Amino acid sequence: MYNTKIKKEIYKDIDDHFSRYIEEARELVRQPSIAAQNIGIHECAEMVVEHIQRLGSTDVRLVEYPTGSPVVYGTVKSKNPRAKTLIIYCLYDVQPPEPLEEWKVEPFAAEIVDLPEFGPSIVGRGITNSKGPLVGTFKAIESMQRILGDVPLNFVFVIEGEEEAGSVNLKQFVHEYAGELSTADGVYLPGTREDENFKPKVLLGNKGMVYFELEVKGGAWGGPQSIDIHSMNGAWIENPIWRLAWALNTMRSPDGKILVEGFYDDVAPISETDNRLIERLMKTFDAGMFKKALDVSRFKNDLEGEDLLKQFLYSPTMNIPGIYGGYTGEGTKTIIPYRVRVKFDCRLVPNMQPDDIMQKIMTHLKKHGFDDISIVFSEGTLWSKTDAENDLAKAAIRAMESSGKEPNEVWPLLPGTGPAYLFTNDPLQMPFIAYGLGHGAKIHAPNEYLVVEGLRDNIKSVAATFLEYLEIQHENNQL
Amino acid sequence: MYNTKIKKEIYKDIDDHFSRYIEEARELVRQPSIAAQNIGIHECAEMVVEHIQRLGSTDVRLVEYPTGSPVVYGTVKSKNPRAKTLIIYCLYDVQPPEPLEEWKVEPFAAEIVDLPEFGPSIVGRGITNSKGPLVGTFKAIESMQRILGDVPLNFVFVIEGEEEAGSVNLKQFVHEYAGELSTADGVYLPGTREDENFKPKVLLGNKGMVYFELEVKGGAWGGPQSIDIHSMNGAWIENPIWRLAWALNTMRSPDGKILVEGFYDDVAPISETDNRLIERLMKTFDAGMFKKALDVSRFKNDLEGEDLLKQFLYSPTMNIPGIYGGYTGEGTKTIIPYRVRVKFDCRLVPNMQPDDIMQKIMTHLKKHGFDDISIVFSEGTLWSKTDAENDLAKAAIRAMESSGKEPNEVWPLLPGTGPAYLFTNDPLQMPFIAYGLGHGAKIHAPNEYLVVEGLRDNIKSVAATFLEYLEIQHENNQL
Repeated sequence: MYNTKIKKEIYKDIDDHFSRYIEEARELVRQPSIAAQNIGIHECAEMVVEHIQRLGSTDVRLVEYPTGSPVVYGTVKSKNPRAKTLIIYCLYDVQPPEPLEEWKVEPFAAEIVDLPEFGPSIVGRGITNSKGPLVGTFKAIESMQRILGDVPLNFVFVIEGEEEAGSVNLKQFVHEYAGELSTADGVYLPGTREDENFKPKVLLGNKGMVYFELEVKGGAWGGPQSIDIHSMNGAWIENPIWRLAWALNTMRSPDGKILVEGFYDDVAPISETDNRLIERLMKTFDAGMFKKALDVSRFKNDLEGEDLLKQFLYSPTMNIPGIYGGYTGEGTKTIIPYRVRVKFDCRLVPNMQPDDIMQKIMTHLKKHGFDDISIVFSEGTLWSKTDAENDLAKAAIRAMESSGKEPNEVWPLLPGTGPAYLFTNDPLQMPFIAYGLGHGAKIHAPNEYLVVEGLRDNIKSVAATFLEYLEIQHENNQL
Repeated sequence: MYNTKIKKEIYKDIDDHFSRYIEEARELVRQPSIAAQNIGIHECAEMVVEHIQRLGSTDVRLVEYPTGSPVVYGTVKSKNPRAKTLIIYCLYDVQPPEPLEEWKVEPFAAEIVDLPEFGPSIVGRGITNSKGPLVGTFKAIESMQRILGDVPLNFVFVIEGEEEAGSVNLKQFVHEYAGELSTADGVYLPGTREDENFKPKVLLGNKGMVYFELEVKGGAWGGPQSIDIHSMNGAWIENPIWRLAWALNTMRSPDGKILVEGFYDDVAPISETDNRLIERLMKTFDAGMFKKALDVSRFKNDLEGEDLLKQFLYSPTMNIPGIYGGYTGEGTKTIIPYRVRVKFDCRLVPNMQPDDIMQKIMTHLKKHGFDDISIVFSEGTLWSKTDAENDLAKAAIRAMESSGKEPNEVWPLLPGTGPAYLFTNDPLQMPFIAYGLGHGAKIHAPNEYLVVEGLRDNIKSVAATFLEYLEIQHENNQL
């Protein structure tokens, strides 16, 4: 039904209206929406509401919370009673633009700059993360509506306004609207997923995380309890920083193994499907490129090839993002500090649970005689995982494969962390895929950009994904 | 010869002139002299020169250096050709007064405040450390001169102006003037050595120190080499903070032992004389008072009594005054930092040598596979030790014992570090004693104070020390 001809017509419509589509993306960037600084959030949310209204929504609205940003929530429904329902989950907030002096153009002017490597590109805060691809998805639907009349898909828009500030209200929203949301068949996250070599990716999952701090203070074990003391007392009084070093050594050994009892217990074996995806990914996986980009000379345990890739994707971590205690300024100061703190982020893979891991870390410290060490818990986030055999995943993969972009990749799991788990885990338990053509970069950094032609590819790739999804429903005799 | 009558006359002279002596001490405080901020150094040095001129010196002068503070250097000589020579070593600079808002009076007004616990006291930056006792020594000599005429002692004044900023020029000065200085028989450091319970001390030595930082950066072993990277890479890239934790664990074990090979090799056994002093000290040593003042609930290895005191005085340390790396701000940031630094101060006891210890630490790191860790050396200071049987030490101890202040203490070694080694070690190798009555405190802190009656006691105790020293020369038939 959705043959090449229809796809071509939709692509042509996108081309015909592309200059306006560009302007709509730039216009959204020009409205700052910095959740962390509470700048322009409502103004931007209203613009997103209007976008969705222009697609025919009559129920789109702001779901407000006592603090933080509202969620833009609304539907665009098909007349076809058998139409499947997709949640479009995205964000309308952006990272703060600071440091301002490093921007080559005004961060909220959305200027088009001819970048030496990439050609004409929109440069501005939020253009790639994620206002460009958000508008791209709206515009893909607009072009599809113009060509198809009724698009036989129901769209549920969930566009949050504080993804860059912890997605607090989104958690609440998903909880409150679980009944309505649960009627959907999957979640699509707009994004431009081509790297600097224009290699696109479909992303099917990500790791979870627990973030916490350990604090060692003087106490019954020794050490100064309330004040930094002169270090001449080191001869008879122990130092919290040493105690921390000894505690850390019970937690991870120099070979990289995490020594917390039971830490690896719930690590799921790699599934058959994932093994096939890994095999496929190995054809294009370029460890050298990562090494160069990250400026490292060596991977852990000198792993290579598939072992290295599996380590990257399927191993949990116990990372230390920061440590601080005592005198940290220039020069010399001779004290025994009364406390020291260390931050941890542990990335969790399926089927590890944040609460369980925190419990195991607490038990570990106690068992090793460190029950005086206090744990300050910051956040726990579940991993997310979508089966590659799911219809929506298949649609995205097909769209990518038929795009002509070679090579291309399917990542069964990304080692990062995000809010996808809110949809993929209880109670919604639905597939969540992230895909979209186009290249943009420097997100969270000065001079964030999106290649103009990448935006065109992006809009087409969204349409292609939805068309493939419809095609799969036909194959399944569900539409 | 120096019988009780003469001492009484001198004490009376001190009493008679005490109100002027107080004013002279306050006047010196009113001239700020902050080496770290280069404030008032020369003005204060000139005032010290005048003090020494008023004692009859014709050669006192400023010994200048290209940077930093001048040393005030000059002599007051006796007509007696057999007179022994004492170096009066002290400082005229002070710590910065900050934080200013915590002072109850102007830090450089030298106001007299009636302190609830101690009565009328001079409050001001530098009054106790060390302008009060410095003026006290000048005034003791003035009163002795008035009563005795010629005091049969030669005084060599070495008053430095950057003790609070590392005594850099003093090192140079002692090196350059070693020939002249070497004719002296001992060094006296003015100070008010009564604690808050009015228990006085004679101090006969102190520990040395090496101060350095270790820096772990990504390198051939792994880790990011030049930028902080996203912590999702923790699955395949090691973290410098973990590497540091593992390195630290090779350096000291949880039982407190320093594991650096040969670290303890040069620790001298406790001498017979020192053992006698320890025995004496044990009579007044109050571990509970230290525990309370430092707010600790436990000493290392639960040591008690003489073992504890010996640990405090005679054991070297490897203390960590500060550690910092990665993200140390509020909240969560998920990075693998490319570097981490840790500060060390190691207190050294006789006969450990700073250079040798640094070498051993380097060798240790290399041996354990950490030769990538760089060592940033800050300073090395030798320990200092004066035999209690020395004439000057005996004079101070006798002066203290005859002062009527009970209990009183002789400390063979203090666990802190100071510039005394410049006089006690090569090339001068002379005795160095620190003694003087009076109580003052809050040095290096807001509201530094010196009890007014303590200044009176201080001046008398300096005179008493010199008289006892002369007495001992008589006993030795040397005068």
